[in-house]
Amino acid sequence: MNVSIIKIGGNVIDFPEKLDEFLFLFSRLPGKKILVHGGGILASKFGENLGVMPQMVDGRRITDRDTLDIVTMVYAGLINKQIVAKLQSFRQNALGMTGADGNLIRSNKRPVKTIDYGFVGDIQEVNVNLLTYLLEDNIIPVISAITHDKKGQLLNTNADSIASELATALAVKHNVNLYYCFDKSGVLIDEKNENSIVPLINEDIYAELKKEEVIHSGMIPKLDNAFAALHKGVNHVWIGKAENLLLASKGKLSGTTIEKHRYDLY
Amino acid sequence: MNVSIIKIGGNVIDFPEKLDEFLFLFSRLPGKKILVHGGGILASKFGENLGVMPQMVDGRRITDRDTLDIVTMVYAGLINKQIVAKLQSFRQNALGMTGADGNLIRSNKRPVKTIDYGFVGDIQEVNVNLLTYLLEDNIIPVISAITHDKKGQLLNTNADSIASELATALAVKHNVNLYYCFDKSGVLIDEKNENSIVPLINEDIYAELKKEEVIHSGMIPKLDNAFAALHKGVNHVWIGKAENLLLASKGKLSGTTIEKHRYDLY
Repeated sequence: MNVSIIKIGGNVIDFPEKLDEFLFLFSRLPGKKILVHGGGILASKFGENLGVMPQMVDGRRITDRDTLDIVTMVYAGLINKQIVAKLQSFRQNALGMTGADGNLIRSNKRPVKTIDYGFVGDIQEVNVNLLTYLLEDNIIPVISAITHDKKGQLLNTNADSIASELATALAVKHNVNLYYCFDKSGVLIDEKNENSIVPLINEDIYAELKKEEVIHSGMIPKLDNAFAALHKGVNHVWIGKAENLLLASKGKLSGTTIEKHRYDLY
Repeated sequence: MNVSIIKIGGNVIDFPEKLDEFLFLFSRLPGKKILVHGGGILASKFGENLGVMPQMVDGRRITDRDTLDIVTMVYAGLINKQIVAKLQSFRQNALGMTGADGNLIRSNKRPVKTIDYGFVGDIQEVNVNLLTYLLEDNIIPVISAITHDKKGQLLNTNADSIASELATALAVKHNVNLYYCFDKSGVLIDEKNENSIVPLINEDIYAELKKEEVIHSGMIPKLDNAFAALHKGVNHVWIGKAENLLLASKGKLSGTTIEKHRYDLY
C-alpha cells in the first residue's frame, strides 16, 4: 500500500481561506493519505481570551492543565472538525482523531529535568493495525496533535513528531512518503530568496550544506528528523509550501525532497 | 449483533467525579456499545468566559456562529477526548467521533420558520455501514452532539435525537437496546419521590399515565421519541439514572423500561 502523510502547520491552519484552498489540493492527492495538524496560533488566541496566557521557555510551549484543556478544545475540537467537514464536502471520507482515539498513539508525559513542560507527551507506540484498517477502508485519518498515556491522561504532542512516528510505523509494511508543509518554499540557499530552493538533499549534500552554514538553527532538527524517518524505511520526505503539495506528489521538484541516497530517485 | 446505545446528559458530564464513576460502569457493560453525549452546561460556561452569552428561546439554545465554535470545541474536543482517554485507561477501545467523521451523521440546517435556531441540524441519514464496521472491530464509538451537512457546515444537534436515530438505523439489521441516562431514577408517579418509579411502560400504560397526568410536559416528547424508536425496531428503551445503567443492562428494573407490548419482555 502507498501512503502519503501530510503535516500542515499554523501558516495554513490559521487562515480559513488558505486552509480551504489547501484542503481542496489535499482532496486531489491520489491514493491513501493521512493529514496531521496542530493549531498553535488559534490556541494561543483562545487561551488569551480565556485569560490563559501562553507560557514559553526557550521557544517551547509549557502545557499546564488549563493550556491542555485549550489545546484539546482547539486542536481536537474546532480545527479538526472543521477540516473533517470541509474534506467531507469534497467527497473525501475523512475521520478526525487524536492519539487517544482507538489508542492510536500512546505517549509518556515528558519527565521533568531542568524544565517542566507540563502535560507534553513523547510518543511511545503507534497503533499501526488501526491505521491500516482505516486506510484499507478508504478512510482518511485527520490527526490532531494530542495523544494519551493510556492511563487516562491526554498529552499535548508535537505535530512534526506525530507525522514522522506515523510514517516510520507504517513504513515497516508499506511504501510511505512524508510531506512537511511549512512557511517557506523548501530549504533555501538564501533565506530571503524563495526561488533559491535546494531541490534535493541526501546525506552528502546535507553534510556539505551544514558545513557551509546554508542549513543552520531550526532547520537542523527538521532535517535530522527527516533523515531519521528515511533510515527507518520511509521512502522520501518533502519539505515545502502547502500550495505546492500536489506538484510535489507528482514528482515535480517544487520544494525540497530528502532522500537517503541520490540513486533512490531513479 | 447485540448493540447497546447509551446517552448521557449534563447531570453526568458536568461533574468529573460522576463522569469517571459512570465511565467505569460503562466499561463493565458487556457486548457492543455506543456512547452519545452532549455537554451543554460546560459549553455555556466556556461561552460566558469568552463573552458569548447563551441565547435561549422557549428553553432552546440558539446556535449562532460563535456558539457553534464553542460547542464544537467543548463537545467534540474537551469532553469527547476526556471520555475517550478515560475509557482507554479502562481498556475500552473507545474512538471519539462527531457526525462529520466518516460521514457518520448527515443533517440539514433547520429551516427558519418563526424562530431561527441558527446552526442546528435535523438528522437526515446515518452511516450504518461505518458504525457496523467499527463495532465489529470491537471499537466503541463515543459520539458528541455535532453533525454536518456534507457541504462543509458543522451543525449542533440534539444528543437524544442522535441516540434514537443511531438506534433505529442499527435496528434494521441488529438487536438494539437504547438507554437514556437522565437526572431522575425513571418515570416517577410522584416527581418528588425517587422511589415511585414506574418500572415498565407499554403503549396501554403510557396512554393511561398521560390521562392521569402522571406523565406530562417535558416527559411526553421523551416517551414519544422512545415509542417511535420501538416502532422502528429498537428492542427496548430504558430511562433512568446513569449509576443504575449496569443493573438495567442485566434486566433488573432499576429505572423505567419502555416496550411496545408487555409480552415483549418474556
